Amino acid sequence: MKTRIISGLVMAPLLLIVYFGGPLLTLACFLIGIIGSREFYSGFAKMGVKASYAVTCTAALALYAIDMFIDSDSQYFITTMQLWFFAVVLASCLYLFKIDERQPADAMATITGTFYVVFFSYHVTAAEQSGEYGMLVWLIFLTAFGTDIMAYFTGYFLGKHKLCPKISPKKTIEGSIGGIIGSTVLSALFGYFFFERIFIHCIIIGVLGGVVSQFGDLTASVFKRKMGIKDYGSLIPGHGGILDRFDSVLFTAPMVYYYIMLVLS
Amino acid sequence: MKTRIISGLVMAPLLLIVYFGGPLLTLACFLIGIIGSREFYSGFAKMGVKASYAVTCTAALALYAIDMFIDSDSQYFITTMQLWFFAVVLASCLYLFKIDERQPADAMATITGTFYVVFFSYHVTAAEQSGEYGMLVWLIFLTAFGTDIMAYFTGYFLGKHKLCPKISPKKTIEGSIGGIIGSTVLSALFGYFFFERIFIHCIIIGVLGGVVSQFGDLTASVFKRKMGIKDYGSLIPGHGGILDRFDSVLFTAPMVYYYIMLVLS
Repeated sequence: MKTRIISGLVMAPLLLIVYFGGPLLTLACFLIGIIGSREFYSGFAKMGVKASYAVTCTAALALYAIDMFIDSDSQYFITTMQLWFFAVVLASCLYLFKIDERQPADAMATITGTFYVVFFSYHVTAAEQSGEYGMLVWLIFLTAFGTDIMAYFTGYFLGKHKLCPKISPKKTIEGSIGGIIGSTVLSALFGYFFFERIFIHCIIIGVLGGVVSQFGDLTASVFKRKMGIKDYGSLIPGHGGILDRFDSVLFTAPMVYYYIMLVLS
Repeated sequence: MKTRIISGLVMAPLLLIVYFGGPLLTLACFLIGIIGSREFYSGFAKMGVKASYAVTCTAALALYAIDMFIDSDSQYFITTMQLWFFAVVLASCLYLFKIDERQPADAMATITGTFYVVFFSYHVTAAEQSGEYGMLVWLIFLTAFGTDIMAYFTGYFLGKHKLCPKISPKKTIEGSIGGIIGSTVLSALFGYFFFERIFIHCIIIGVLGGVVSQFGDLTASVFKRKMGIKDYGSLIPGHGGILDRFDSVLFTAPMVYYYIMLVLS
């Protein structure tokens, strides 16, 4: 448990980054994308799958260049975003042309890694830039870490019934429910103190975040189990890699972003 | 060679569909997407990879629903398109939760198949709906089939130097150059008779189309070779499947679409 708490404290500087926001947060998202995909590809390498890190890094640079230099309200933005998706798939396919050395799984892992890590984490900065509701970017982290911490403690003290033992043997149904409550309470507090006008929406996001962040966690567990690894990396000694820390954020970020754009805006 | 010519004639009804355009063309694109991905997944099945056809069909329905019901100039359009990409990756990852039965490659093939077949072919209808340059949708097919036919005949009569024997043993450098010329001439004729105002652009699209359609053809060859199959399907007896016919179109469609949106508009 001590490890867990220390590992939580390690995340404290992140809150400062979210607080300052802007270019600093954008840079942090970019780094999560390129460090996270590197860890993801190291896991694939253990299965004999050689994804193209060069394609993914180029794609990440291009995505953030689009974000910075193209007005998100313009017609060009949608076109270049679509072009970005096309180009990622195209480049990954062309990567197979060295047919003696490569397998379809190498291209497919490149496509998957670029979208799952780089594109998903990009939603954090996209949410922050979403105008009057940009401050809801906090909920991406509050739901993810609120779920994580409360699920851990509830499971530790009350956990009896296994949630999905084949994917993640230690998780319990009690922990899962505790996680959703933790996420909801934190989000409600946030709404109450900082965004009273949309208090109800904050609670809804809290509930949704409690659910999707656990799916994010389990998705990472599935991949790690299949790759035969315990952690994605060892960036923070003893506390796993970037992807281990942000597996839930990869799912809560799009959830919050689309909630802002489709429900609130 | 007889087979080749008959197989060309089989495509004639397609020209009628392009001529009428509108909902008929949209429906044709949708069908290419769902039949093509089915063929693609049959190929994967031969490698022991079980992609989720249900995810891909649902994604195709959603993509065309977005296309039909949401104004492409609105902010909602870009958001729902982004959401579509997110949802495809998400659903494919969740597909892995039956962890005993499934492998990462199953999810990755679903992501790849949905984007490569459904999203790429969707660009045909997107190009047709691009406003004043919508008629350039013809160039998607003229470049693809112009390249294919001329590459075949040039290669047949003049071919001496192999292009990339490991991927496609019969292709020659002479055929490849002939293909680019064929695409360029057809596109130039189209521009001269129907779109004189942008004649030069038609020629540029012709050259680009001659190149990318060969990349489309080779990409399909790489996949088929790795899957250990000669053709993707047998929809048209003796002439392969939908994907064998449209492998080049999957690449020329985005090329023409992005050319219209980023250069001409």
